[in-house]
Amino acid sequence: MTWRNVGEIFSSGALRPLVVQFDALIKTALAEDLGRGGDLTTDLIFKASHTSQCVLKARHDGVLSGLAPALWVWASLDDTLEVALDYQDGDFLPSGSKVLEIRGRTRPILTGERTVLNLLGHLSGIATRTRRLVQMLDGTNASLCDTRKTLPGLRTLQKYAVTCGGGFNHRFGLDDCILIKDNHIAACGSLTEAVQRVRALIGHTVKIEVEVDSLEQLDEALSTGVEIVLLDNFSAQEMAQAVARRNALNRNTAEGTKSPLLEASGGVDEKTIRTLAETGVDLISMGALTHSVTNFDFGLDH
Amino acid sequence: MTWRNVGEIFSSGALRPLVVQFDALIKTALAEDLGRGGDLTTDLIFKASHTSQCVLKARHDGVLSGLAPALWVWASLDDTLEVALDYQDGDFLPSGSKVLEIRGRTRPILTGERTVLNLLGHLSGIATRTRRLVQMLDGTNASLCDTRKTLPGLRTLQKYAVTCGGGFNHRFGLDDCILIKDNHIAACGSLTEAVQRVRALIGHTVKIEVEVDSLEQLDEALSTGVEIVLLDNFSAQEMAQAVARRNALNRNTAEGTKSPLLEASGGVDEKTIRTLAETGVDLISMGALTHSVTNFDFGLDH
Amino acid sequence: MTWRNVGEIFSSGALRPLVVQFDALIKTALAEDLGRGGDLTTDLIFKASHTSQCVLKARHDGVLSGLAPALWVWASLDDTLEVALDYQDGDFLPSGSKVLEIRGRTRPILTGERTVLNLLGHLSGIATRTRRLVQMLDGTNASLCDTRKTLPGLRTLQKYAVTCGGGFNHRFGLDDCILIKDNHIAACGSLTEAVQRVRALIGHTVKIEVEVDSLEQLDEALSTGVEIVLLDNFSAQEMAQAVARRNALNRNTAEGTKSPLLEASGGVDEKTIRTLAETGVDLISMGALTHSVTNFDFGLDH
Amino acid sequence: MTWRNVGEIFSSGALRPLVVQFDALIKTALAEDLGRGGDLTTDLIFKASHTSQCVLKARHDGVLSGLAPALWVWASLDDTLEVALDYQDGDFLPSGSKVLEIRGRTRPILTGERTVLNLLGHLSGIATRTRRLVQMLDGTNASLCDTRKTLPGLRTLQKYAVTCGGGFNHRFGLDDCILIKDNHIAACGSLTEAVQRVRALIGHTVKIEVEVDSLEQLDEALSTGVEIVLLDNFSAQEMAQAVARRNALNRNTAEGTKSPLLEASGGVDEKTIRTLAETGVDLISMGALTHSVTNFDFGLDH
Amino acid sequence: MTWRNVGEIFSSGALRPLVVQFDALIKTALAEDLGRGGDLTTDLIFKASHTSQCVLKARHDGVLSGLAPALWVWASLDDTLEVALDYQDGDFLPSGSKVLEIRGRTRPILTGERTVLNLLGHLSGIATRTRRLVQMLDGTNASLCDTRKTLPGLRTLQKYAVTCGGGFNHRFGLDDCILIKDNHIAACGSLTEAVQRVRALIGHTVKIEVEVDSLEQLDEALSTGVEIVLLDNFSAQEMAQAVARRNALNRNTAEGTKSPLLEASGGVDEKTIRTLAETGVDLISMGALTHSVTNFDFGLDH
Amino acid sequence: MTWRNVGEIFSSGALRPLVVQFDALIKTALAEDLGRGGDLTTDLIFKASHTSQCVLKARHDGVLSGLAPALWVWASLDDTLEVALDYQDGDFLPSGSKVLEIRGRTRPILTGERTVLNLLGHLSGIATRTRRLVQMLDGTNASLCDTRKTLPGLRTLQKYAVTCGGGFNHRFGLDDCILIKDNHIAACGSLTEAVQRVRALIGHTVKIEVEVDSLEQLDEALSTGVEIVLLDNFSAQEMAQAVARRNALNRNTAEGTKSPLLEASGGVDEKTIRTLAETGVDLISMGALTHSVTNFDFGLDH
Repeated sequence: MTWRNVGEIFSSGALRPLVVQFDALIKTALAEDLGRGGDLTTDLIFKASHTSQCVLKARHDGVLSGLAPALWVWASLDDTLEVALDYQDGDFLPSGSKVLEIRGRTRPILTGERTVLNLLGHLSGIATRTRRLVQMLDGTNASLCDTRKTLPGLRTLQKYAVTCGGGFNHRFGLDDCILIKDNHIAACGSLTEAVQRVRALIGHTVKIEVEVDSLEQLDEALSTGVEIVLLDNFSAQEMAQAVARRNALNRNTAEGTKSPLLEASGGVDEKTIRTLAETGVDLISMGALTHSVTNFDFGLDH
Repeated sequence: MTWRNVGEIFSSGALRPLVVQFDALIKTALAEDLGRGGDLTTDLIFKASHTSQCVLKARHDGVLSGLAPALWVWASLDDTLEVALDYQDGDFLPSGSKVLEIRGRTRPILTGERTVLNLLGHLSGIATRTRRLVQMLDGTNASLCDTRKTLPGLRTLQKYAVTCGGGFNHRFGLDDCILIKDNHIAACGSLTEAVQRVRALIGHTVKIEVEVDSLEQLDEALSTGVEIVLLDNFSAQEMAQAVARRNALNRNTAEGTKSPLLEASGGVDEKTIRTLAETGVDLISMGALTHSVTNFDFGLDH
Repeated sequence: MTWRNVGEIFSSGALRPLVVQFDALIKTALAEDLGRGGDLTTDLIFKASHTSQCVLKARHDGVLSGLAPALWVWASLDDTLEVALDYQDGDFLPSGSKVLEIRGRTRPILTGERTVLNLLGHLSGIATRTRRLVQMLDGTNASLCDTRKTLPGLRTLQKYAVTCGGGFNHRFGLDDCILIKDNHIAACGSLTEAVQRVRALIGHTVKIEVEVDSLEQLDEALSTGVEIVLLDNFSAQEMAQAVARRNALNRNTAEGTKSPLLEASGGVDEKTIRTLAETGVDLISMGALTHSVTNFDFGLDH
Repeated sequence: MTWRNVGEIFSSGALRPLVVQFDALIKTALAEDLGRGGDLTTDLIFKASHTSQCVLKARHDGVLSGLAPALWVWASLDDTLEVALDYQDGDFLPSGSKVLEIRGRTRPILTGERTVLNLLGHLSGIATRTRRLVQMLDGTNASLCDTRKTLPGLRTLQKYAVTCGGGFNHRFGLDDCILIKDNHIAACGSLTEAVQRVRALIGHTVKIEVEVDSLEQLDEALSTGVEIVLLDNFSAQEMAQAVARRNALNRNTAEGTKSPLLEASGGVDEKTIRTLAETGVDLISMGALTHSVTNFDFGLDH
Repeated sequence: MTWRNVGEIFSSGALRPLVVQFDALIKTALAEDLGRGGDLTTDLIFKASHTSQCVLKARHDGVLSGLAPALWVWASLDDTLEVALDYQDGDFLPSGSKVLEIRGRTRPILTGERTVLNLLGHLSGIATRTRRLVQMLDGTNASLCDTRKTLPGLRTLQKYAVTCGGGFNHRFGLDDCILIKDNHIAACGSLTEAVQRVRALIGHTVKIEVEVDSLEQLDEALSTGVEIVLLDNFSAQEMAQAVARRNALNRNTAEGTKSPLLEASGGVDEKTIRTLAETGVDLISMGALTHSVTNFDFGLDH
Repeated sequence: MTWRNVGEIFSSGALRPLVVQFDALIKTALAEDLGRGGDLTTDLIFKASHTSQCVLKARHDGVLSGLAPALWVWASLDDTLEVALDYQDGDFLPSGSKVLEIRGRTRPILTGERTVLNLLGHLSGIATRTRRLVQMLDGTNASLCDTRKTLPGLRTLQKYAVTCGGGFNHRFGLDDCILIKDNHIAACGSLTEAVQRVRALIGHTVKIEVEVDSLEQLDEALSTGVEIVLLDNFSAQEMAQAVARRNALNRNTAEGTKSPLLEASGGVDEKTIRTLAETGVDLISMGALTHSVTNFDFGLDH
């Protein structure tokens, strides 16, 4: 077991958020809890010099996510605290496993406890559900991805938690991928016109995705050469047909080429995801991954 | 139907958050979505002068919460938009009901749509579940209240949503109520000593609550004269006994006096809440109200 | 004498503010002094490598308050500075006593000097006057407390300084205690109605205080069972009567019970405070503790 | 009486602060009072639609300062409030005079009341004392000016209040005037060397002031041609001699020339200021104007 | 000529920045100029009630960019100012043309003048040079685009100015397009390995670009199927060969298909751009568009 | 070669900016580049534990400026990085010279690279041109100074870069020097009246500068005794006359006295500056130093 200063935080995984990206959020969360008077109970009970060592444990099975922002809570209160980590983000946590130990002055450990648990519980809740759904896709062609249906102020961390669970990120915001929806199409007169209007001015690094709600509209989308098509609330049968039409288009191109990518959206949950995946779609996007999260239960034992 | 400027926002309810309290959160949420390039799709499709009128509808039954912060999203993008409201926060929304209409320039309406829906869906999700649980308490003495298990940056709004559903707020943070827990007691040697240490220095406007995990500890807590006792993971049977002991204490005082208040905590859900309430406890607190929220589904029709 | 890094700041006292609570204020104060060009004089006179050791002394008797925010000024400019502390917040400072020594690069020591002295002088000024007034209450039942009459941006630190002087904190803001005033009562028709309206919706962790301006109104307040009654501008004689009526109410309850607490307000100063205290009131609140502060004079000797 | 929207704030005086300069301070002050729950009492007593009209009155004689930031408090809570002003910043307020009336929704009027009074009381307190001292200088050559001994976050407003009282502003910070003190001189070996070192690199728009503590040091300062000399803790007799030596230097130059300006500092109060002024010094600077302020008492009548 | 309130700002063009995106920058720019004392000269010369009408003129030929942020400067100082616009962003401005007129209180017009001119001059400088270069590409296949070589805090506005001049935006930051450079390739052992490592984890909305410095490396890049290849410092001859090799690859696919896109980078200026474009590359990227800007000269006539 | 922690940043020069002055700018610049997803390419290619050592080189001759803010970029990403410096701000950099080496984890080095180069390139570009122009003034009486024509958010750093090149700073903003321009004069009726109106209220630490556009106006300015006169767009011949008239005024005063200082403004560049300087003016101010900057080219070699 290696003890390190709690401020020396980095994430061993890919697509990690950096302290400069979540520092303001952590400071806001602490301000919500400290208010104007601070942790009255802890301050009145413990002397400043009192020290403790505590263990953070998982109370059920799941996937860990959020170590860096969680530890930054404690580092923000007292950068002399030390931590010993037994798991990394993305690791499977068996029920009862010891995630980490923290030691140092008692006051900051207790004052930060609730904020640490709130963060870690939320992000690990996302990672845990994502992992369960990703495993249901095993052996299919489909990848699971998130959406922009995130909670205010939490987008970077929630999308990071999705990757900890093995999911993929859809666009981060309105400026890193074009997504043409029904109202955009209506305003232009046709899907084709909408695509052309966008193409005339958009930078070359940005992909274009179009949302379609019927096979007829899919055909039009296929003819425009867009990179991604979102199949909105298609039945599994329609989805399979959509895949077939897309594949026909690629018949003469290099093996393995799939253009455009097909993304299934709408009505995705544990009951439907396998059926959707077996239609051959490339992506399944799911808002509930981030908008309806069940907290993962951790406990800090003193 | 009265059209008003979208910036003239106030909430008719009690305990409303003010714009100065949620403005920074809304700006952060918009920044997450706009990134550096803004809403590329909408900007390239619609001219600046294009106008629209849209309807926001509830896609299932529930309770509305979050109108003020949601409308502030649109006001932040374009303060010339106009809105006509059919419901207020706290109102019951039948499935399919029209919550509001918005009209004005198309670009800001669409650019803000996702952020509006994310906020309103989350807060109404909290209010809806709270209302359902509160109704289960009908005829009992118990009130439902929230906890500090909130998501980072969302405490004020989440706690407000709880009140829209008819629940009550537990303390807002670490500085507006003393809550003495097991580790505080352990550090002092006894519950009584912990209470005395706090009482010597705490301001006269602050209540003291003590967490107990047995009837023996309850007896000690009762002898200290604290204002609230939290019964942590008591069985229904133990809880009923706790209520009896508390009531015995108040036998000779004014009718209706209940001192200290008894708060049940742990394992609260739709299945258990009625049984807990029937033990006679005064309060039932529930972290899942705010840490495990199911989004309420709204749609914006163009 | 122990030299420590100036950034390793904690307060040994109870109810201490944390760096995350005052960091923004310190940065603002420094920005006010540095402007756009920084400390022109010091930069042009001293080389970056020049070092100094300076002593901070008290120029008259008093009580120390504000070490942590003051040292954070220097830590914000150069975290390699070192400090040796001879006193802690709350300590009595005899005139001429050496509070601390600071050593390291000359530029940051001088550049931060004025901001350090402004902070320490203001907070120690509050603590010093508070201690003097608290000593005048010796042997009485009354405690001295502050109000919300604080200076913009300084509430947390000013209220902390009051506790360093031995005073107590009244509510921190509008959300941690109910205080029903004359205009609230007027709007409801009666004091009793106002209390009932609040009680129906307020959380169980929040106390209710009512302001009364006559003995008749006190009687009504006593009948509502509120936790605290503020006696607004009562004469000492009326105050004594108020205490008597409150005590009569508690005749049959446990010994030592005082419910509601009685708080004297209005016209409190060094001349009147003893007389007020001897009426038997529990609390004496005083806006001047924080709104009319006389600076405590410190000097930094080079 | 003209009713105007509370947000249309400007100051008729010279050297006014702008909303962009004090907006953050006002938001911070409101946040301190609103906390996470807002004004619980007012929200629970008054419906959102309830309206009021209130009068702000002076409770003793004085000078008004701070209208713009004070009104911005209310504008920040509800920009539909209306105000009718009877006085402007810098005006003399007789005891009992009606400063302004405010009307509109009751909730924001009450919620902002304390913050308005705190600001206005502090700034008018500064202006009132400044005016009293300035009047004592009548018929002398001396002007009264402030220092950098201001409270954290309040420098711009405090210095503005000084001008409302008829005082002048010394430098705003460390970057708009050189002030060479004893420790700077010690580091250079001589006052002359210090002045030369600064002159070699300082921009041409910046004046140089030197602090001296004896007539001998004054002579050296006079020989360097600096624009201002600060006479630190000189006796009145020494000060008169300093003025004589300065005047001798200007004997052959244009009439009325006074170079360098002489600034008296140290031990300035109502008892000493007239004597100091009669020595012929040009400026008298006084830290207590901003570091030891007695609040001006306003009341808001409902 | 239509007079409008200066705060009703929107941009008629595509890809406009929104007030919520540049508000903080404008406030910072104003703070830099106002400091702690504000516009001393203007405040002392003009009464608050003095009004003016001024004309903003172009002092040479060019392209307008930055109206919205520039007008927001004035709106931030006084939202009752009125403006009449004769041009929109992206319009050609002949030397001497009147861009806009502004009227209202004199103080805010003058106080904001420098900040307005600094912003408008910088952004119009970018748009003007971009337009000139874009015109040199007339009749070729190439588009001009920017880079991440922008000035701190100005990325959104600088990239917007490029589009006003008819240029296109390369990626906005590190998170909206993959760009694999030499050091990334070195770390993976081969370009192919680097592409594969990225592809395994990257979201489906993100394009992959690879930088190559030789025709051999280009061949490897072509075999990986990446969407964009950056030709770093290729000679015109090599670039033409690169285009030929890319085109050969697309021989059998749909007419007009160009995959991957080829981007020329390095040594681009007015002398070389036409030659580079005639090689048939699709994009020419140029850091100097944003890192070495010549200010466009505007004047405000009173 | 001495390796130091990258966070231990100080500048050896005079007039250095402090971390507290540029921290927010650096965080903003990083946020522009990191967006919501961070450095996708680097994160997917390099493991968190991978380390590197890189060299920063100058690609042509010039003057270094901006080390402290540039290194703070890296310190903000990872405070365990180490740096070895071979040059300091203000040093001449021969083409190809190694400015510094940086070592530690590869991810933060690469993620911060572009922001470091953007900052250093801009500030060194300013210092380089300033030095070239200053050298052209050799042997004359004139100093080169900057203006308020700076880019939003960059004033402090740009003005610092001017001093690294040997130039001087004109006023930092609107509050540290009076500058009376034509429209101020017009509003007062005469230059003399404008000066008197300002003098009546301005603090004694603030100099007064007046802009004149003819020799007649200069004569009026000379009679007022202002400290500085700005000669706006004077021909070289007129400027020489202006100097003669000023000198005549000082004939009888101490040798070397030059009052007021004369500042040449308008049409300054490499071709005109020597001629202007030889007229005998004291200062030559030039907006292009900061508003039209050519980037200095640095490279980071891996």
